[in-house]
Amino acid sequence: MSGNTFGTLFRITTWGESHGPATGAVIDGCPAGLLLDEADIQKELDRRRPGQSDITTPRKEEDRAEILSGVFEGKTTGAPVSILVRNKDVDSSKYEAIRNTPRPGHADLTYQLKYGFRDWRGGARASARETVGRVAAGAVAKKILALHGIEIIAHVTELGGIHAKPVTLEEIRENTEKNPVRCADLEAAVEMQAMIHAIRSEGDSVGGLVEIIGLGIPAGVGEPVFDKLSAGLARALMSIGAVKGVEIGAGFKCALMKGSQMNDPVVLKDGKITTSTNNAGGILGGISNGEPIVCRIAVKPTPSISKEQHTVDLGSMKNAKIRIAGRHDPSIPPRIVPVAEAMVALVLVDLMMRGGFIRTSFI
Amino acid sequence: MSGNTFGTLFRITTWGESHGPATGAVIDGCPAGLLLDEADIQKELDRRRPGQSDITTPRKEEDRAEILSGVFEGKTTGAPVSILVRNKDVDSSKYEAIRNTPRPGHADLTYQLKYGFRDWRGGARASARETVGRVAAGAVAKKILALHGIEIIAHVTELGGIHAKPVTLEEIRENTEKNPVRCADLEAAVEMQAMIHAIRSEGDSVGGLVEIIGLGIPAGVGEPVFDKLSAGLARALMSIGAVKGVEIGAGFKCALMKGSQMNDPVVLKDGKITTSTNNAGGILGGISNGEPIVCRIAVKPTPSISKEQHTVDLGSMKNAKIRIAGRHDPSIPPRIVPVAEAMVALVLVDLMMRGGFIRTSFI
Amino acid sequence: MSGNTFGTLFRITTWGESHGPATGAVIDGCPAGLLLDEADIQKELDRRRPGQSDITTPRKEEDRAEILSGVFEGKTTGAPVSILVRNKDVDSSKYEAIRNTPRPGHADLTYQLKYGFRDWRGGARASARETVGRVAAGAVAKKILALHGIEIIAHVTELGGIHAKPVTLEEIRENTEKNPVRCADLEAAVEMQAMIHAIRSEGDSVGGLVEIIGLGIPAGVGEPVFDKLSAGLARALMSIGAVKGVEIGAGFKCALMKGSQMNDPVVLKDGKITTSTNNAGGILGGISNGEPIVCRIAVKPTPSISKEQHTVDLGSMKNAKIRIAGRHDPSIPPRIVPVAEAMVALVLVDLMMRGGFIRTSFI
Amino acid sequence: MSGNTFGTLFRITTWGESHGPATGAVIDGCPAGLLLDEADIQKELDRRRPGQSDITTPRKEEDRAEILSGVFEGKTTGAPVSILVRNKDVDSSKYEAIRNTPRPGHADLTYQLKYGFRDWRGGARASARETVGRVAAGAVAKKILALHGIEIIAHVTELGGIHAKPVTLEEIRENTEKNPVRCADLEAAVEMQAMIHAIRSEGDSVGGLVEIIGLGIPAGVGEPVFDKLSAGLARALMSIGAVKGVEIGAGFKCALMKGSQMNDPVVLKDGKITTSTNNAGGILGGISNGEPIVCRIAVKPTPSISKEQHTVDLGSMKNAKIRIAGRHDPSIPPRIVPVAEAMVALVLVDLMMRGGFIRTSFI
Repeated sequence: MSGNTFGTLFRITTWGESHGPATGAVIDGCPAGLLLDEADIQKELDRRRPGQSDITTPRKEEDRAEILSGVFEGKTTGAPVSILVRNKDVDSSKYEAIRNTPRPGHADLTYQLKYGFRDWRGGARASARETVGRVAAGAVAKKILALHGIEIIAHVTELGGIHAKPVTLEEIRENTEKNPVRCADLEAAVEMQAMIHAIRSEGDSVGGLVEIIGLGIPAGVGEPVFDKLSAGLARALMSIGAVKGVEIGAGFKCALMKGSQMNDPVVLKDGKITTSTNNAGGILGGISNGEPIVCRIAVKPTPSISKEQHTVDLGSMKNAKIRIAGRHDPSIPPRIVPVAEAMVALVLVDLMMRGGFIRTSFI
Repeated sequence: MSGNTFGTLFRITTWGESHGPATGAVIDGCPAGLLLDEADIQKELDRRRPGQSDITTPRKEEDRAEILSGVFEGKTTGAPVSILVRNKDVDSSKYEAIRNTPRPGHADLTYQLKYGFRDWRGGARASARETVGRVAAGAVAKKILALHGIEIIAHVTELGGIHAKPVTLEEIRENTEKNPVRCADLEAAVEMQAMIHAIRSEGDSVGGLVEIIGLGIPAGVGEPVFDKLSAGLARALMSIGAVKGVEIGAGFKCALMKGSQMNDPVVLKDGKITTSTNNAGGILGGISNGEPIVCRIAVKPTPSISKEQHTVDLGSMKNAKIRIAGRHDPSIPPRIVPVAEAMVALVLVDLMMRGGFIRTSFI
Repeated sequence: MSGNTFGTLFRITTWGESHGPATGAVIDGCPAGLLLDEADIQKELDRRRPGQSDITTPRKEEDRAEILSGVFEGKTTGAPVSILVRNKDVDSSKYEAIRNTPRPGHADLTYQLKYGFRDWRGGARASARETVGRVAAGAVAKKILALHGIEIIAHVTELGGIHAKPVTLEEIRENTEKNPVRCADLEAAVEMQAMIHAIRSEGDSVGGLVEIIGLGIPAGVGEPVFDKLSAGLARALMSIGAVKGVEIGAGFKCALMKGSQMNDPVVLKDGKITTSTNNAGGILGGISNGEPIVCRIAVKPTPSISKEQHTVDLGSMKNAKIRIAGRHDPSIPPRIVPVAEAMVALVLVDLMMRGGFIRTSFI
Repeated sequence: MSGNTFGTLFRITTWGESHGPATGAVIDGCPAGLLLDEADIQKELDRRRPGQSDITTPRKEEDRAEILSGVFEGKTTGAPVSILVRNKDVDSSKYEAIRNTPRPGHADLTYQLKYGFRDWRGGARASARETVGRVAAGAVAKKILALHGIEIIAHVTELGGIHAKPVTLEEIRENTEKNPVRCADLEAAVEMQAMIHAIRSEGDSVGGLVEIIGLGIPAGVGEPVFDKLSAGLARALMSIGAVKGVEIGAGFKCALMKGSQMNDPVVLKDGKITTSTNNAGGILGGISNGEPIVCRIAVKPTPSISKEQHTVDLGSMKNAKIRIAGRHDPSIPPRIVPVAEAMVALVLVDLMMRGGFIRTSFI
């Protein structure tokens, strides 16, 4: 399992299991001179944290970030920034009953088969708790991007079959963090909340869509051929648990378009070369063109549901049934919003360093 | 542009421009003892080649593969396998007229902005010709996979709004290579061909969908957290020019599903643990579960169309119009089929080597 | 400073400054099923620790290893193993006086110039304390190697001009850890200790040589061309602070040898192909040949000496003089022994995984 | 054998065997806008080429470089630069007789054991011919460095026991390329040539030392901890076949020095911070300090000698004797000079890109 490091120049390594003593991230390649304290990280962790509202799991994860290295007198030094988050409120007892019955839709069985043995407590490394390290590191990436006038924002555009109407950038900025489903269409948001309460009482869960937008990214970011900005985003976003699809710009709709519809006309606007539409999602030939970067991800419904499901007992090797107790979000997209933002930020900082847009030694 | 290498242990580096003297790939990490000759590579290059049928570009690229290293007495030695394909039938004259007017939907402008200068002949490195190296290397990857009983097959499931009906594995194997649109539903294939002729006469182009299936992949392939099999596939497929979306298993449909629908029931079948559905597309927690790997990609319509389009003249910095002459496929999906297969094969060989499923020193 | 990760499949990331809150390492790619507890790591940290004897610095670093992830029920799970060591006994006051006067032979000036700013407390990331993470991770690597019958041992062969006489493997195993200078020639060890006491009272320091031997390594380890075993060892050992030279086998002596002397005759011994001498140091063409791996490193004298030295005051930009107070080892080689062993172990585990000699998913 | 790629941002992949059809290199990450033609590469290949003088092998390798990609209108485009060199004057017949008797001091046996099979013609991938790709790529690296006022020069300081007297930089520049042994001390050079003639007539070979100097390198190059400039140089130089030792600055002599002798005094000179000696060889804490970079490598005697040697017949598995006919340099150091320069140049360009000293997208 040598896949816990991400990035070439701005490189993060995350670690930690859901029911282990702690979780964290090491950021290698953070330039010196960045003002950074624990509050910067805490702010993002608080957005990711369970128990934020009545639609998320009632688990209370305090998720207090501690910076253990790489910062001196309030500024990064260029040395690795190690961030530690102790796991609190851990209760593994509910998992003992199902240690031999892999949960459908979960990684229980694949980990067991790959490693011949597994930490069966709460999903362990395959738990959503793994994203703590991503979000902590992403907070640092976002801070660097902000210095370059770049903003990454995400919002839920669809949940359990309820579609948000098209929204403006202002609505996204204004409304998203104001409601627990992180939907910028406030009317749809109300419906989504009601739907989640209903689905939870059924013991079921729902999926949805999240859109991530990058603003202020200069033209020229991305390294062809295999390290295209689009390819980096696809990998980064698909690496998030529960994500089953990634699209950029017009995405899957492009299959139904003609070239004359899909091609974004190139036009001068205030003396600047721009495009009058953005079906490309800000990326052509794998390189940013200066327009907003737009991606969308498909998030599957939470696999942990309390409805009875079919599985196999690994001890007796017989068909079995499982009901998952535990405490789970009935819908992941609202909490995946800060994770997706973090991943996009990490991809951008790394590729912007590679392309010379962000300095590597000091800010 | 340091992004032309792909893979960790089975590592390919591709090079070459559409109108340069040659294009090629170096495979680093091919185990010794693999029977390999130029015919193995030629077979796949011939599937990628333009001019295969009346629906593709009339350019004739002979695409003759030459192996320059790494093979001795018909077997690989463990040393890098360098494959060279000379570019023939190159005519750059048509591009002179448009060297200052970036083609909408193309990488012309982004390359110009990133590198401050560009080879304007036929797309250069951003041309579809870049995929020659991928397909050549993918041919070697496929040969290795075949030794492990693994097969990668792709087919067009949608083109210009025409959907293929659901097909069986047998139909895919039997029908796909028999028609120029590579659609396994032969009735839809006929419609698609007619539609392409129509769209070409309009001077326009269409997009489509390609599905890639991996069969025989053992459980346990993929390295969490960032090097998940799913993340690797997403990066690999999104790195192909013209691809704007990637989904795995139920993909974007999962946004509309409930957990009780999405979760694949785990069941015993002939004493083996399996799932009765495959919404996961063969991957859970980023690790293969032994079921078929299923991905789909959204391919945008060919950006080179002969209809008039808006662009900017980089010399005069004024709005301009462009009509692209050249010789272009009105639809990319049929020719992307072998490219997508190659990318999936490359991801699998690399991750199977990392996981110990394929030996690294000798076959 | 994106250089804190080492290895391709068995990959460590270290972090931490000498006077920060903690230091540590994350091991990514440790196979599942390895019995591991904190005592395994503590054992090696105790060998590295200052204050072990009267010849080392009187600083007392308790260096208590805490495993924060990747181990469940006493065994590794395949997930990253995060190891934390809190810094104790930190006294930064002595460094305030010299924050503007870079210490000759130290990284003070180069860090200042590279990062435009630096943590001036005790060398920070460039301190010998940085090796805590290497040794902790190396302890895990050694445990894996031991399962394959491989042993890595190092000893001091020269210190301050005193040469150890040639020693047998048994003497190295028997004597090295018994004396504070880690010299297997016990007579020389006594002289070395006396010499160190003298040099310390002069306010000066001495350099020396350390030899590292790898036993039981199978033939075939190492990946030509750039990832040769020899190249990996050279990088790994030269990356240790204070090391200014690395040689393998006959090393620098080979410059004075003829081919007929240098070439190790290949002979059968008990039906096994072996060599009757080992000038190659166990490596030919970058690949192990089954003989013992032998490397030697040149370690410079501790740069922190109390004698007056010339430097520049960065505030006033005038020539200045410096006397370094602090608490420092007058000689580094004895304490570099476990660090060098760790680095060799890390190189071997990684290349043995790449070559298929050590399994990557589970032990 | 996945080790044929070198570098992170300026990344080369080399390929080719001594008796295969060709050899070459792909440079990935060369910035756009560099003036480059085949003559730039040819110049360095001619320095590496055998048959340059009567002290080298009489083989005539024409070594004509062909650039196949990445250059347009005389300038690099940012796309990979693929360089091809056809192998000429190949005569494999002499090797048939010894295909079962591995040559002592060669990689024959280790390749056979690692890959279970080998190309036995002339050393194949383990031949000195492998360095063609390094030198070709190094020529490009040197051109980039020259734009930044950086010069890399190497010279032979010892050969077969004959030591060159200390020389000035001017003597190195003036004299090295004027004599076939590449020794800047012209008197020693004459002795060395006579010695080589003598040793050749004995059917034996000699080793030697080569010093490489980097001038004009700014302070701040190198990424601690594992990617130190010193560590990168050690890996790069030790990866050259026949190199058995690498040292930086005072190198192995530091073992005999006191701190007060080794530490380079920091002094102001014309308002610039400098050191009055250079025992550090221009590197402290793994980062350049602005002084000349100085490294030395120990080169073993050519293993191919015509004297009778002991080996084992792999067919009969009996002890055997071998006399190597072929055509071989009796001494490698003179021809390793351009190879060592190339490797140092490659390390520098890559680390200077990582540190932001050299631009990555365009010159």
